[in-house]
Amino acid sequence: MRTPHADGSLYRFPPAEDEEALVMLSDILPTGFECGVQNGRVKPGDTIAIVGAGPVGLAVLLTAQFYSPAAIFMIDLDDKRLAVAKQFGATTLINSSDGHAAHQVMELTEGAGVDVAIEAVGLPTTFAICQAIVAAGGRIANVGVHGKPVELHMEKLWDRNISITTRLVDTVTTPMLLKVVRSGKLQPGKLVTHRFAMNDIMKAYDMLGNAAKEGALKVVLTNDAHR
Amino acid sequence: MRTPHADGSLYRFPPAEDEEALVMLSDILPTGFECGVQNGRVKPGDTIAIVGAGPVGLAVLLTAQFYSPAAIFMIDLDDKRLAVAKQFGATTLINSSDGHAAHQVMELTEGAGVDVAIEAVGLPTTFAICQAIVAAGGRIANVGVHGKPVELHMEKLWDRNISITTRLVDTVTTPMLLKVVRSGKLQPGKLVTHRFAMNDIMKAYDMLGNAAKEGALKVVLTNDAHR
Repeated sequence: MRTPHADGSLYRFPPAEDEEALVMLSDILPTGFECGVQNGRVKPGDTIAIVGAGPVGLAVLLTAQFYSPAAIFMIDLDDKRLAVAKQFGATTLINSSDGHAAHQVMELTEGAGVDVAIEAVGLPTTFAICQAIVAAGGRIANVGVHGKPVELHMEKLWDRNISITTRLVDTVTTPMLLKVVRSGKLQPGKLVTHRFAMNDIMKAYDMLGNAAKEGALKVVLTNDAHR
Repeated sequence: MRTPHADGSLYRFPPAEDEEALVMLSDILPTGFECGVQNGRVKPGDTIAIVGAGPVGLAVLLTAQFYSPAAIFMIDLDDKRLAVAKQFGATTLINSSDGHAAHQVMELTEGAGVDVAIEAVGLPTTFAICQAIVAAGGRIANVGVHGKPVELHMEKLWDRNISITTRLVDTVTTPMLLKVVRSGKLQPGKLVTHRFAMNDIMKAYDMLGNAAKEGALKVVLTNDAHR
């Protein structure tokens, strides 16, 4: 295998480490951390909201806790994923399927909104929630992959001292995350819900096609012959 | 006169100072500087674009030069205002009335776009120009007052590592700007194009109603009786 620019993207595999945790470091952990937590400048005492409790939203949830926010609202359509978020440290769960998620967040924050709203879905509706709940002086950190334009309410936001950021993960934080994993303060292996042998990869895809029903987050494929 | 919270918003008038320059410090200079230059994080060597060459856009132009950008594109519909921008330090003038301003900026930057795009108008079309010309890793700093939503092209921007900021001026930079004015490095008095006695205030409004035709930027009203 030839890996271009390997100096910037390959890291030595620490022996005797939890392999599955390290697989999570290849993409979703640095994505959530760099695009969501770092761009959102999460700091101690902040009230933050994460819109989307899929694997990347959960990666945001795990890494946001490095900086000790006071409250973490997790917003999703799926109660199963919200329950996982609760186990992972979310302080408040909001099921957005009734269309009132933004209203609930504003009530819970006594009209102030959140310091950081992190978009981890990539849809106009979820981006709209972030705009509706960001506090004056707050940050909207986009993590989701978007396929179409969104409406930006500049008529409401122009004087609110907010920032909106976008970023493509570049994994520059992988060495840092590796240290946190090794310290035990971050356990990304918890994101792995299913395991398949490489020969059963088609079954893995079928299962992921019903991810919500199956309660699936991340799937690890194992090369049995190698083991 | 009663001034609430005067400790935070009143500054001692330096004797023998250029009064007209100080009038410009009351609003447009800190607006351009705080919302445009500081939020846009203009730094030495940057290529920046200012969309809108009205008084606030020109205030951005004047204060952006504190940080020695390499190139300053000034974009406006009015050649008269662009000519003023040239005198104030713009390096490239672009008249956007043909609808090709963004295209021109991309050509002039060899496809890279600008490090900082500063919106000093407050319309969907001018905000669209900023989105079209911001480079990967760049900043869009909004200064304009918007009255309606804008379309945000997240499908193009989600992976471009950009930031968009909004801010209402709070004049926290007034003491700093006052020092720069006193040093002679900033001459905001140049923004004053017309002067009227207070008694002629209706004439002043009539003239400003034709600001483009009159080549008007800022108007100073003087209480003659006091002088």
